[in-house]
Amino acid sequence: MKRDMKDLIKELEKKNTREMFGKDFFLTWDKSKEELDGVFLTADILRRMREENFSSRIFDSGLAISLFRDNSTRTRFSFASAANLLGLEVQDLEEGKSQIAHGETVRETANMISFMADVIGIRDDMYIGKGHTYMKEVAQAVQQGYDEGILEQRPTVVNLQCDIDHPTQSMADFLHLINHFGGVENLKGKKIAMSWAYSPSYGKPLSVPQGVVGLMTRFGMDVTLAHPEGYDIMGDVEDLARRNAAASGGSFTKTGSMAEAFAGADIVYPKSWAPFKAMEERTDLYGRGDFDGIKALEKTLLEQNGRHKDWTCSEELMKTTKAGKALYMHCLPADITGVSCEKGEVDASVFDRYREPLYREAGYKPYIIAAMIFLSKVKDPAKGLSELIKRDLSRFSL
Amino acid sequence: MKRDMKDLIKELEKKNTREMFGKDFFLTWDKSKEELDGVFLTADILRRMREENFSSRIFDSGLAISLFRDNSTRTRFSFASAANLLGLEVQDLEEGKSQIAHGETVRETANMISFMADVIGIRDDMYIGKGHTYMKEVAQAVQQGYDEGILEQRPTVVNLQCDIDHPTQSMADFLHLINHFGGVENLKGKKIAMSWAYSPSYGKPLSVPQGVVGLMTRFGMDVTLAHPEGYDIMGDVEDLARRNAAASGGSFTKTGSMAEAFAGADIVYPKSWAPFKAMEERTDLYGRGDFDGIKALEKTLLEQNGRHKDWTCSEELMKTTKAGKALYMHCLPADITGVSCEKGEVDASVFDRYREPLYREAGYKPYIIAAMIFLSKVKDPAKGLSELIKRDLSRFSL
Amino acid sequence: MKRDMKDLIKELEKKNTREMFGKDFFLTWDKSKEELDGVFLTADILRRMREENFSSRIFDSGLAISLFRDNSTRTRFSFASAANLLGLEVQDLEEGKSQIAHGETVRETANMISFMADVIGIRDDMYIGKGHTYMKEVAQAVQQGYDEGILEQRPTVVNLQCDIDHPTQSMADFLHLINHFGGVENLKGKKIAMSWAYSPSYGKPLSVPQGVVGLMTRFGMDVTLAHPEGYDIMGDVEDLARRNAAASGGSFTKTGSMAEAFAGADIVYPKSWAPFKAMEERTDLYGRGDFDGIKALEKTLLEQNGRHKDWTCSEELMKTTKAGKALYMHCLPADITGVSCEKGEVDASVFDRYREPLYREAGYKPYIIAAMIFLSKVKDPAKGLSELIKRDLSRFSL
Repeated sequence: MKRDMKDLIKELEKKNTREMFGKDFFLTWDKSKEELDGVFLTADILRRMREENFSSRIFDSGLAISLFRDNSTRTRFSFASAANLLGLEVQDLEEGKSQIAHGETVRETANMISFMADVIGIRDDMYIGKGHTYMKEVAQAVQQGYDEGILEQRPTVVNLQCDIDHPTQSMADFLHLINHFGGVENLKGKKIAMSWAYSPSYGKPLSVPQGVVGLMTRFGMDVTLAHPEGYDIMGDVEDLARRNAAASGGSFTKTGSMAEAFAGADIVYPKSWAPFKAMEERTDLYGRGDFDGIKALEKTLLEQNGRHKDWTCSEELMKTTKAGKALYMHCLPADITGVSCEKGEVDASVFDRYREPLYREAGYKPYIIAAMIFLSKVKDPAKGLSELIKRDLSRFSL
Repeated sequence: MKRDMKDLIKELEKKNTREMFGKDFFLTWDKSKEELDGVFLTADILRRMREENFSSRIFDSGLAISLFRDNSTRTRFSFASAANLLGLEVQDLEEGKSQIAHGETVRETANMISFMADVIGIRDDMYIGKGHTYMKEVAQAVQQGYDEGILEQRPTVVNLQCDIDHPTQSMADFLHLINHFGGVENLKGKKIAMSWAYSPSYGKPLSVPQGVVGLMTRFGMDVTLAHPEGYDIMGDVEDLARRNAAASGGSFTKTGSMAEAFAGADIVYPKSWAPFKAMEERTDLYGRGDFDGIKALEKTLLEQNGRHKDWTCSEELMKTTKAGKALYMHCLPADITGVSCEKGEVDASVFDRYREPLYREAGYKPYIIAAMIFLSKVKDPAKGLSELIKRDLSRFSL
Repeated sequence: MKRDMKDLIKELEKKNTREMFGKDFFLTWDKSKEELDGVFLTADILRRMREENFSSRIFDSGLAISLFRDNSTRTRFSFASAANLLGLEVQDLEEGKSQIAHGETVRETANMISFMADVIGIRDDMYIGKGHTYMKEVAQAVQQGYDEGILEQRPTVVNLQCDIDHPTQSMADFLHLINHFGGVENLKGKKIAMSWAYSPSYGKPLSVPQGVVGLMTRFGMDVTLAHPEGYDIMGDVEDLARRNAAASGGSFTKTGSMAEAFAGADIVYPKSWAPFKAMEERTDLYGRGDFDGIKALEKTLLEQNGRHKDWTCSEELMKTTKAGKALYMHCLPADITGVSCEKGEVDASVFDRYREPLYREAGYKPYIIAAMIFLSKVKDPAKGLSELIKRDLSRFSL
């Protein structure tokens, strides 16, 4: 079942990824389908190499800067793992510990931390219209620094989650599907239900559902987006999903019924998120420093969530999926009914049955990040990977 | 006096450490005497290698996760040093920074951080019945993850201090004794006084005295445990110490008098700890969220401590030890009378006289940790170390 | 324009830096002029090596400890970059996270963190009479530990900013001048205005102006120190600057007028700092725990600052410099009028015009730090650097 390392490299040879060299990774839809294929193949090759004890260090020294504006375990460890795999040392830029607040511009900070940085991973998903913009600003700043000869290397900016997309998540999800279903060609026509689900917490980022519908519609899948009234995602992403589906021979369907989305689905991805409009409002309130307004909004949103407690991935619903055996997906951590909360996104028995594939899904993320970095740093990735295998250094040497 | 590197390797060849391969290190009494000898020898060899500028990197990349539930300088730096020596990069899992609180299971977190982790060092010594249990849970979770193919490698769990044992401390202590007295065979019949001592702070962990009596009784030493009434350690560990002593030809004696313990002792280890029963009570109160109860308990315990201010390692007491020159030991930092507190565990003049051996004692810990990792990762450690010496890479290359 | 790597190494051969081997770096005026030249040359060579993809890893493992008593972005990243360039892994000693507060001595902590440490970088600039003293204590402690055989290597202490000097800043500044003006010989007779400037914040460290006048007077420059009455720097440093100037054929002038300092200057360095006497008073108040006194002092100082809002680097003032084109310098971040504050150290248009050289100036710091470490670790640095080039390992290997 597992594809051979050399076969994967041969496949990678056929993909045109030249335009990724020296480039950042912001949104999956900035990239061509061949480029995305390149990331999936490179991730799988790096994984295979590690399993077979090949070192994939391409850096002997150099820093990988992480800039997280939100607490994080998985993403932090995934980024650290990816950087370490390639030979880079992580340095966290914690804004609290830094002097950034003292009126320093993005341009200045970006340059100051980048003198020896090969990668900057950013997670900034809290406010609509902010995260993606910020990442672009950082990228522009380091580009300018590089052009002016201030920076000796151009650090690659990798989006570790923004307000629009969550490419390292959606691509890890998709690589999981590729390997689970035995190849990307087998995903054509498969139905995936990206569904809102009830959670007692509020304000979960939109980047996961947006990333999923923005990516999976490109590979000929039948993507159904389900949510209660008022829980719309970003309109631009819906439009994009529609165009993607038309081009790929798949489909993009919206429904206000979780049951409809689940019916006959091959894959289900039930997850809570906040309404886009409410997040916009929250961003405005935050901008105006109206913290009472934010509190009031939170209260309203939690009440609104509370009217949709029936949006949960129950055993009953799972039975209605293809042969009752749809692949259950989640970006983790999930709100599990009776475990992490009284009533949540998923029944405990469903979640437990899918633990193994869920953890496997998560396990792709470090390799996706490493692949994004690799393709930005190595002009001819197939040749580069071949050379690493020929070099034959061991990761563990005894 | 210093044993030759190759002699040490020859000695290591004779020790059966095969069962340590792929295994965790929780408690010294989980391990055979030969296995403990293997750790001591490997630690000494790694130390000698570093002194002679041999690189002992066996990993070209990989993470060492530290999970500390308590502030720590020494242990943090010891773990970081050990990991770095072998080629691993430390990533701290700080629970405050993470999403663990959001209802995530141990199994999930353990897998999420371990995709590229070769070691997980855990310090969790605050609550009776918790730390050791937690470490076992983590180990079980990553074993399952490894068995299911989710993790590409099985990270070794190393106990950096739990509620029961503190193996990296007690083994560093013991390696110090081995080298101080010129060989493990010279420790037979030596009297060590593991004694409670007064401290104005409360709630110091029991794992140090427990670790010491649990370990040192295995090597034919005469171990005396001294404490005021009510300051008992865990009963199971006392029973174990008794059985150890019987098997090793040493002894395990309990006394309620510090003077009795010190009389004629070759080694003294005066240190404060909290009564086991009180710590159990505290754990219960914590479990019930009874913070007023905890405050009341703390007050009682401090008053109880205060009745034993005469339990201090004074110059007078030191004079009663073997030739007045017993080796003074401490895990550091100590509560020094007139320095860190008005009245504490030890006289300033005693402490000062023993600074050099105390620091040397502490200096073994990074090597003990590195040896524990090494023996878990390398099937034939004597052969592995020989190969590293033959490889002859320099730690510092100019 | 750029000097060839081999020419730089030839120049370095001529400099006597033998006395730097195994030594710390506290103050630039502890070092001979040849030794400072050695640092500048080594920094430039390491920079050139990195640009040309030569690895300058001289350590295969080992720790670089950072001990910062103040928040910091640039210095932290500069230190991390330098350490990583040479092959060391940074471990932050955060005093909050550690047990240092529990009555532990400097000697003890210094040894406990240094078992595998090759460098300790310290930033401690908050209190007069403290930072430099503390660094010396740490150095003495690790020297003793090394002499006693407790530490296998003697970690080099590098001053990353103290109450007296800021050598990594002033030397990065000066290397910037060397390269900007095409060689150290071209700096003879150049006029630099080190001037106080208004800032709405208070208590900025004196180490920058002190470091600048203490260093630049040694190279035959005409150094003018300008500040309003009452903003004197440390008297000892002024005396030193006078002696330096006499010896180097430069000059050291004091003035109470920013206009006078700027008139005809080749280089201007306008920056806020706190009056030395006030900082002494603040240190005393802090020592006595008189926090009301500190608040009152802060208020007084801010009012005092407020009387000198005309001390700003305006476009008008810039016009009075040599050909209206003096090189503007700052250690960053600057208080920019209308950007980070209503009224600050510099006009926004001036600052913006000099962004590129300012960032370049900052970019020298990692290399200055790396050079300081290198010269302390490598007996014959010219030979060592030649060997690294001959070794020809790539930093990036594909």
